Amino acid sequence: MYTVGVRDHIMVAHSLKGEQFGPAQRLHGATYTVTVEVDREELSPLGQVIETSVLRDSLRGVLAEIDYRNLDEHPAFEGKRSTPELIARHIHRELGRKLPVTAGTTLTITLHESPLVWVRYRAPIRGASMLPAEPA
Amino acid sequence: MYTVGVRDHIMVAHSLKGEQFGPAQRLHGATYTVTVEVDREELSPLGQVIETSVLRDSLRGVLAEIDYRNLDEHPAFEGKRSTPELIARHIHRELGRKLPVTAGTTLTITLHESPLVWVRYRAPIRGASMLPAEPA
Amino acid sequence: MYTVGVRDHIMVAHSLKGEQFGPAQRLHGATYTVTVEVDREELSPLGQVIETSVLRDSLRGVLAEIDYRNLDEHPAFEGKRSTPELIARHIHRELGRKLPVTAGTTLTITLHESPLVWVRYRAPIRGASMLPAEPA
Amino acid sequence: MYTVGVRDHIMVAHSLKGEQFGPAQRLHGATYTVTVEVDREELSPLGQVIETSVLRDSLRGVLAEIDYRNLDEHPAFEGKRSTPELIARHIHRELGRKLPVTAGTTLTITLHESPLVWVRYRAPIRGASMLPAEPA
Amino acid sequence: MYTVGVRDHIMVAHSLKGEQFGPAQRLHGATYTVTVEVDREELSPLGQVIETSVLRDSLRGVLAEIDYRNLDEHPAFEGKRSTPELIARHIHRELGRKLPVTAGTTLTITLHESPLVWVRYRAPIRGASMLPAEPA
Amino acid sequence: MYTVGVRDHIMVAHSLKGEQFGPAQRLHGATYTVTVEVDREELSPLGQVIETSVLRDSLRGVLAEIDYRNLDEHPAFEGKRSTPELIARHIHRELGRKLPVTAGTTLTITLHESPLVWVRYRAPIRGASMLPAEPA
Repeated sequence: MYTVGVRDHIMVAHSLKGEQFGPAQRLHGATYTVTVEVDREELSPLGQVIETSVLRDSLRGVLAEIDYRNLDEHPAFEGKRSTPELIARHIHRELGRKLPVTAGTTLTITLHESPLVWVRYRAPIRGASMLPAEPA
Repeated sequence: MYTVGVRDHIMVAHSLKGEQFGPAQRLHGATYTVTVEVDREELSPLGQVIETSVLRDSLRGVLAEIDYRNLDEHPAFEGKRSTPELIARHIHRELGRKLPVTAGTTLTITLHESPLVWVRYRAPIRGASMLPAEPA
Repeated sequence: MYTVGVRDHIMVAHSLKGEQFGPAQRLHGATYTVTVEVDREELSPLGQVIETSVLRDSLRGVLAEIDYRNLDEHPAFEGKRSTPELIARHIHRELGRKLPVTAGTTLTITLHESPLVWVRYRAPIRGASMLPAEPA
Repeated sequence: MYTVGVRDHIMVAHSLKGEQFGPAQRLHGATYTVTVEVDREELSPLGQVIETSVLRDSLRGVLAEIDYRNLDEHPAFEGKRSTPELIARHIHRELGRKLPVTAGTTLTITLHESPLVWVRYRAPIRGASMLPAEPA
Repeated sequence: MYTVGVRDHIMVAHSLKGEQFGPAQRLHGATYTVTVEVDREELSPLGQVIETSVLRDSLRGVLAEIDYRNLDEHPAFEGKRSTPELIARHIHRELGRKLPVTAGTTLTITLHESPLVWVRYRAPIRGASMLPAEPA
Repeated sequence: MYTVGVRDHIMVAHSLKGEQFGPAQRLHGATYTVTVEVDREELSPLGQVIETSVLRDSLRGVLAEIDYRNLDEHPAFEGKRSTPELIARHIHRELGRKLPVTAGTTLTITLHESPLVWVRYRAPIRGASMLPAEPA
């Protein structure tokens, strides 16, 4: 299996409600380094998993919607906590709608919040072509 | 699948018996950067794989038993070599007994011994709740 | 010249007023990796620049005052922007008051806000012993 | 499952034909950081996945054939593009022929071309012992 | 003293004539991670060394001239070796002409060619305002 | 000023006597990542600070004397603590005797003992050519 990965980052504010979160209940922030990995069994005729520039631009497009923002007031996290796990899940869903890949392609999103802690969400995507009627 | 990972490190002395180990047969030492990753299909109601502070504290508790020690004289490695593979296996077993996770959860332990070499042990754990009669 | 360095990090929210800051005018956040370096011409009788645990604990004490907070509402940044340069300056001043080092010791504070951007403030400190009448 | 990983690097020139590659159509170059990971269910009697020095030397032997070269003129890439995916595939094949491991062992080759982009090829190898009639 | 640093990278081909260079005499390539650091005694009224976006864009402009190219055929290195030291010197000179900073500002250019080797050039720049008659 | 830097590492055991060292009083160990930086005002006619292979080989030669050893029993640290500061000082002295550079060249040795702690020793060297009568 072949994989290609790219890295970008976002700088967001948020707070995590619930006493289990300790000091993270307060409004604070994070630089999340975001890596995306795309798996594919066979390469394209060009000898690639996917064109890197397409992957990077698609990722940037998804991240631009949440970058430099307070996620406590962002519609994507209305009514739910913006834990890094759910931010990864959000990026996976949005990128899955944008990437020109076959439904079933596995996409892995990893967020590093510090040198010591990271989260990951890994799952097949349904694929852009399968979602014509769905609002972005 | 969701994953959360945390990083810590230990500084240990040891020697590896057997001429195949070359200079590592001599008493020497290593800083092992230790990463733990916990996999889980669904998130908790809080939107997390596991509380990061619980994972970090549990890992520190396990590492404290071997940190700043000569593993040649440590009971956990009596009668066996303390190769990084077996140190990873040891951390996996001990952490599996401490973590408040369901039996069957996959735990991945990675040790970097230098910028150029690392080892990993990845397996499901039996889970703390299944081990009431077993001595820690 | 000898130097010892340690690393920690903070996760803060803030906004930067002024249209030159573009999207950073919005409330957002950052994980700042904070490194401190202490220079000294001669070592202590123990063969050290400074005890690492003292340096790490002092740094943690200073960072705890701003960690997991919204700097827009923090007294230390009242009436000024919390640019990374000024956060580094703040940490330098506060740490200089706490560290048990001779006045004139050079202290370097470096903040990485992402893998691509960092800032640094480097200057001698006046030293804790010279500041008896000054409120912390 | 146990894994051992090692890291090395190569510095090569190449060009990628096809307008989709944009500026990479021009003759340019890359430092590829190359990591190899070997998986194994059980450890050797010595408590290892594989002897690290054997793995590092085998990898160096494979990389020496392409290191400090222009891949546009290298026989291994005659008639095909030397995309990082295909370089990873090449290293996988050549290393699989050299490593003293059982057929079926999974080998993972990862190439980082910059801090922001990487590729990976992961597959079982056929194993050296199965290839007696094949020229190295 | 305050410093701000930013990172970018280039992917170039080149060869280094002279038998002392061993295998690097052959046409090969490198990913050079390029970091720029700007020093300044006092901050701007905005609390910055220099606007990060201006620094990053200026650096990208300079690097674009040599990125994805064969330096053996680049006018900037006509008649001289493109050692990493001289590439750093080239970037320093070109960036010094573009950056809106006072003459005398110290600029540090660091190139990493691999995880194991890097070079640096550090010197004051003459400053853009002193070079009105010079073609960019 | 030009600088070239290279990286290597050692894996040593040691203990640090004195109750201030806490758990480090016990026999333990460390992987020290060792970086060496050589400064020079002008480049050689080849356009280099120093030949990288010479620098790397000289460093390896110095490190080989302490690598994979228990520093508590090493002659170089007889009667003194092997703190990382003094290991850096030792490497500086030994490398200064080996490197084919002019007396007065500044050499910087940095040891990382973990991702969180490092030390550095920076000073001019007397230079190999000035030390004919001194035993290596």
